[in-house]
Amino acid sequence: MRKPTIRVALIGQGFMGRAHSNAYRQAPHFFDLPFALDCRVICGRNRESLEKMAGIWGWSQVETDWRAIVGRPDIDLVDIAVPNALHAPIAIAAAESGKMVLCEKPLATSAREGMRMAEAARLVPNMVWFNYRRVPAVAFCRRLIDEGRIGKVFHYRATYLQEWGNDPDRPPGWKTQRAEAGSGVLGDLLSHLVDTALWLNGPIREVSALLHTFAPDRDVDDAALLLARFDNGSIGTFEATRYAVGFRNRNAFEIHGERGMLRFNLEDLNRLEFLDATGPRNLQGARNLLVTGPDHPYAANFWKPGHIIGYEHTFIAALADFLKAVASGEAPHPNFDDALRTQLVLDAAERSACSKTWQQAYDEAV
Amino acid sequence: MRKPTIRVALIGQGFMGRAHSNAYRQAPHFFDLPFALDCRVICGRNRESLEKMAGIWGWSQVETDWRAIVGRPDIDLVDIAVPNALHAPIAIAAAESGKMVLCEKPLATSAREGMRMAEAARLVPNMVWFNYRRVPAVAFCRRLIDEGRIGKVFHYRATYLQEWGNDPDRPPGWKTQRAEAGSGVLGDLLSHLVDTALWLNGPIREVSALLHTFAPDRDVDDAALLLARFDNGSIGTFEATRYAVGFRNRNAFEIHGERGMLRFNLEDLNRLEFLDATGPRNLQGARNLLVTGPDHPYAANFWKPGHIIGYEHTFIAALADFLKAVASGEAPHPNFDDALRTQLVLDAAERSACSKTWQQAYDEAV
Amino acid sequence: MRKPTIRVALIGQGFMGRAHSNAYRQAPHFFDLPFALDCRVICGRNRESLEKMAGIWGWSQVETDWRAIVGRPDIDLVDIAVPNALHAPIAIAAAESGKMVLCEKPLATSAREGMRMAEAARLVPNMVWFNYRRVPAVAFCRRLIDEGRIGKVFHYRATYLQEWGNDPDRPPGWKTQRAEAGSGVLGDLLSHLVDTALWLNGPIREVSALLHTFAPDRDVDDAALLLARFDNGSIGTFEATRYAVGFRNRNAFEIHGERGMLRFNLEDLNRLEFLDATGPRNLQGARNLLVTGPDHPYAANFWKPGHIIGYEHTFIAALADFLKAVASGEAPHPNFDDALRTQLVLDAAERSACSKTWQQAYDEAV
Amino acid sequence: MRKPTIRVALIGQGFMGRAHSNAYRQAPHFFDLPFALDCRVICGRNRESLEKMAGIWGWSQVETDWRAIVGRPDIDLVDIAVPNALHAPIAIAAAESGKMVLCEKPLATSAREGMRMAEAARLVPNMVWFNYRRVPAVAFCRRLIDEGRIGKVFHYRATYLQEWGNDPDRPPGWKTQRAEAGSGVLGDLLSHLVDTALWLNGPIREVSALLHTFAPDRDVDDAALLLARFDNGSIGTFEATRYAVGFRNRNAFEIHGERGMLRFNLEDLNRLEFLDATGPRNLQGARNLLVTGPDHPYAANFWKPGHIIGYEHTFIAALADFLKAVASGEAPHPNFDDALRTQLVLDAAERSACSKTWQQAYDEAV
Repeated sequence: MRKPTIRVALIGQGFMGRAHSNAYRQAPHFFDLPFALDCRVICGRNRESLEKMAGIWGWSQVETDWRAIVGRPDIDLVDIAVPNALHAPIAIAAAESGKMVLCEKPLATSAREGMRMAEAARLVPNMVWFNYRRVPAVAFCRRLIDEGRIGKVFHYRATYLQEWGNDPDRPPGWKTQRAEAGSGVLGDLLSHLVDTALWLNGPIREVSALLHTFAPDRDVDDAALLLARFDNGSIGTFEATRYAVGFRNRNAFEIHGERGMLRFNLEDLNRLEFLDATGPRNLQGARNLLVTGPDHPYAANFWKPGHIIGYEHTFIAALADFLKAVASGEAPHPNFDDALRTQLVLDAAERSACSKTWQQAYDEAV
Repeated sequence: MRKPTIRVALIGQGFMGRAHSNAYRQAPHFFDLPFALDCRVICGRNRESLEKMAGIWGWSQVETDWRAIVGRPDIDLVDIAVPNALHAPIAIAAAESGKMVLCEKPLATSAREGMRMAEAARLVPNMVWFNYRRVPAVAFCRRLIDEGRIGKVFHYRATYLQEWGNDPDRPPGWKTQRAEAGSGVLGDLLSHLVDTALWLNGPIREVSALLHTFAPDRDVDDAALLLARFDNGSIGTFEATRYAVGFRNRNAFEIHGERGMLRFNLEDLNRLEFLDATGPRNLQGARNLLVTGPDHPYAANFWKPGHIIGYEHTFIAALADFLKAVASGEAPHPNFDDALRTQLVLDAAERSACSKTWQQAYDEAV
Repeated sequence: MRKPTIRVALIGQGFMGRAHSNAYRQAPHFFDLPFALDCRVICGRNRESLEKMAGIWGWSQVETDWRAIVGRPDIDLVDIAVPNALHAPIAIAAAESGKMVLCEKPLATSAREGMRMAEAARLVPNMVWFNYRRVPAVAFCRRLIDEGRIGKVFHYRATYLQEWGNDPDRPPGWKTQRAEAGSGVLGDLLSHLVDTALWLNGPIREVSALLHTFAPDRDVDDAALLLARFDNGSIGTFEATRYAVGFRNRNAFEIHGERGMLRFNLEDLNRLEFLDATGPRNLQGARNLLVTGPDHPYAANFWKPGHIIGYEHTFIAALADFLKAVASGEAPHPNFDDALRTQLVLDAAERSACSKTWQQAYDEAV
Repeated sequence: MRKPTIRVALIGQGFMGRAHSNAYRQAPHFFDLPFALDCRVICGRNRESLEKMAGIWGWSQVETDWRAIVGRPDIDLVDIAVPNALHAPIAIAAAESGKMVLCEKPLATSAREGMRMAEAARLVPNMVWFNYRRVPAVAFCRRLIDEGRIGKVFHYRATYLQEWGNDPDRPPGWKTQRAEAGSGVLGDLLSHLVDTALWLNGPIREVSALLHTFAPDRDVDDAALLLARFDNGSIGTFEATRYAVGFRNRNAFEIHGERGMLRFNLEDLNRLEFLDATGPRNLQGARNLLVTGPDHPYAANFWKPGHIIGYEHTFIAALADFLKAVASGEAPHPNFDDALRTQLVLDAAERSACSKTWQQAYDEAV
């Protein structure tokens, strides 16, 4: 029996375009997908490099205007991997044309924009590429929390530390321009931390934030610091920055509960630290788990236990999970509604940083 | 030539009384002190255990009323290691009697009280036992900062993580009662973080804080979270808690500057991590320094390189530094004035947590 | 201009068959290869699973008899990923038919067999899949050694620690049967250590070895311990075992030289530790390098700095390097001759373990 | 009731003399000893520095000839902390005078000499300062082994890595002269590894060793490599060296058993890694235990949980254990007989290195 085919249009030819392309190529190798994938068209502004990219990754066609794509009848899925300011127009147009929509994070440049997107996508399968939920160690962390392994949570602590803000030789890019990015680390890095936190620890009620720009003449935030109160009674700190000299890409969290602790760091993404506080005190210590199987999320899909995976596999697994959800009729996660909740926390952070007061992170109405 | 003798009265018979007793016994073994030390009298409320303690540590006399000691003409130095609420009356009385005064941290239960203490001690040598400044790795960290090794600082991040708040079997003690302690982790743990931060990174200008009590029926804070802006333009996060299940005593900091990074953790107090960001990019990585010599602070006093020291050595070195300063006529550090600056930050944190707004951490007038 | 095409026959449908299949699919995505690759035929004993595998990975044909493949005129390259005892007959037949030959490690089940293979492959491009040479951190280690960063070497220490020998539930497989594997960890794990050692530290002159079988009724070695003297004057220890409970796949080495130290561990394959012993003593410490760029081997091919890669990428890079060497007319490495040198060390180890004396690891004649 | 007094003569004024002096001063502070200690006399060759040392540590008298001490009726215990070649004459003389004898490691410069010492000391309490048995983490390791936590042992792996052999600026000392030291790392470092191994894993049956001298014109071994078979069926590797550039004092071991793993490293002496292989596979990982209590060896004697101890505390605890054994009439450990077993392994290692064959590590007759 032949699998139904999904015809994909990828919009974006940068780093994310490459990571997504890889996911389309690799997902069928590691997952028994319910659909066949047809890499139909890749869209970007630079035709020359686009054609090269299409050749490498096997996209059948190239296109330089996203408007020419989102309504095409021979496209089933639109994947958005372009600067943040373009997420809303493309996603809304695609959704309104009935396409499935995958969108890079952050969902939008504001909560208001995010609401419009979530509304538009209500009737189509959709997902936001908060890929780190698919790190096996992070997914395993979620499973341990669900099993009650750390019990009631007291503290949540997350940092996303990069250093390239301090690099004077780095050419300017869209990520440091408000017109294209909407914000700095707030949308770029803090959004990742918040998505993971909401997934692992539930809703954030209120926040106090500090946004700071170190670089002169830059109109976006280089660093975002956040205190938070969660609905479950726990309290948290968040820190995202591009000026953490010494770290390339340290996306890390620590969670302390009444029965144990969990720690993760993306630079060692195959590892999770787990402390079980329920046994004898003199044998309590953080266990360094190599989350490559057996009996770990996604382990059966990739290699044998002890053989680590990399960054790109999170995209592969996210795509596979999305397709499985579509086939089963369930809502994929994190979808636009999930991502909107993250956006509301980011919005509250911005308001807090402006007003120098605590701000509610969500509206009962949402 | 005989050294002049300092006759010491130690007030306190708990954990700190023991750590200080050890310092008086051990300092002459490792440092060439300018004074001889006479362990004259130890004072506490429980005579029976006090006599046992005096026997073990060689205190010549025992006394159960501190008032009988602070004015005694045969005492030169009064060392205060009792619950926080008693710091001010004892220190003021001792200082007004012209004694040198050593006081456990935090200096006081409020900035107002601390100001009175600092005022009273203006004319006598004084020091507060923020002993972690004497961890060799921390002192070496300060030296590297002074040498410009990490350049202009962007981020300061400190955590003091303990877990005993979550232990239901632990008997109640003075540290969780406002009447004796003045506060919870604010004075107990956050004070350490702030003292170290002010020493390493300079004054804190303003703070936003969250204080939280997890235990029902407890009138002090179990956790304190802080965002801060420093005078030098850097920004910081602080977290002190007794509910960080998984950590016994993790007092840690990370500092990111334009030229490098420094990291420390008290549970591995002989180690300092240093990243030099000025060399070739492909050789940049955090170096794990074993700060046991050669050419490290205090290394010549203790054992050979590679032979680690413990918690107690910080008190030994602090006492030795104090005595050396007294002999040379210089002000010891951290003294009451230094500790008052920490107290002002703690005060601002309390005000911030109450008002849910940012608060100035110091007054120009101070 | 179209690239010339290489038509590949892969013999093997196990774990290695899958890893190689992935390499053929992914190499063109990450490397600008001088050849196009045609995944022509996959060969294995089980037709049903073979067809499934061909479907997943895109092999055009399936075949169950390797003899039907090695001489086919429409095949340019034969890739051998079957149990060790079959390496020699397949490789020799393929080479004699003029095919390029890639062969899984160990090259052979004995040095004598390896010699015949090396002889047969003299006129065709060939390589042995000692893939760990292509771990970026290992390749960077080699570069640092070549640059003289650690100077004259004193000590080389390598361990390959697995634990599955101790798993009573594991079904028996060819790796624990002498008829198929030729040896136990000697060929399976120690061969990796020796290949890396020869590459990084030069020839091994003589060895003293201990081979041990823990499992009753097993005819291969479960553990191999080795002392070694290298030609460059350094001395080494090697340990390979399937009974190192606690480690899934810890392939690690440490090298001490007069100017520094290097350390690596496959379970954290994106990291390399480097200590520079030439600077100030008080700043010497092992640096934890995240070998993901910039300016690290293969970093430009995969993702951005700070985004880690996994196990499979070593095969991708090995294949790309092989094809590049073929196009340029240079000898690929490690080739059969290189692998024969490893085989001679393994042979000496077996003789030493039998005779309980030191044995020369190579013959001047080789 | 007054405690009986032990009058101590310490022979040695170097690094060990200082460590032992500290132990005599500190043991009564941390342990409820069955004896009072009278630091009667310290003996060394250099009177000037000896008097300074006596002043600092409170030795009542100084003496420059050990022969004048060992028979003195007012001495109960002779503690030997001098170069190895003097251990035997002093220990034998002291023991024959009926003194208790404490002796620095290694016991002797040869097994033959060690036998004479053990014979002479048969009737007096005696101990060898293999102080690392008293590292709390090592003692806890022994307890876990005794409890069967790791079950039947497969592998024992130990390294003692120092780097000072490579320091061209280091002045020559007795440790690198055969006349005084008897051997190089064999007696100095390997002896520590072997003592710990025998204590944790039982007798060693046979060994294959390599001894190597890197420095020109040096008559002792700079590095010692050892393969070993234990009586319990496990196999081991040992490596001791002064040329492991990058490590100041890394005394480490790893033990793999059928039910778990244990790892230790002296540079982090408050930590022990323990892996329990009996629980669910996906939760198995090495636990990082901070061995500072509660319920850890010696934890009740020193500071509170989370407050680490240092190198010197191992001597304090060793002395306390010795005195407790003397009071109870039990044999202290490790005593001369224990140390002789280590000496026999070292002897076998020397014979093996000379003959390039395996050698039995003990004689049934011993």
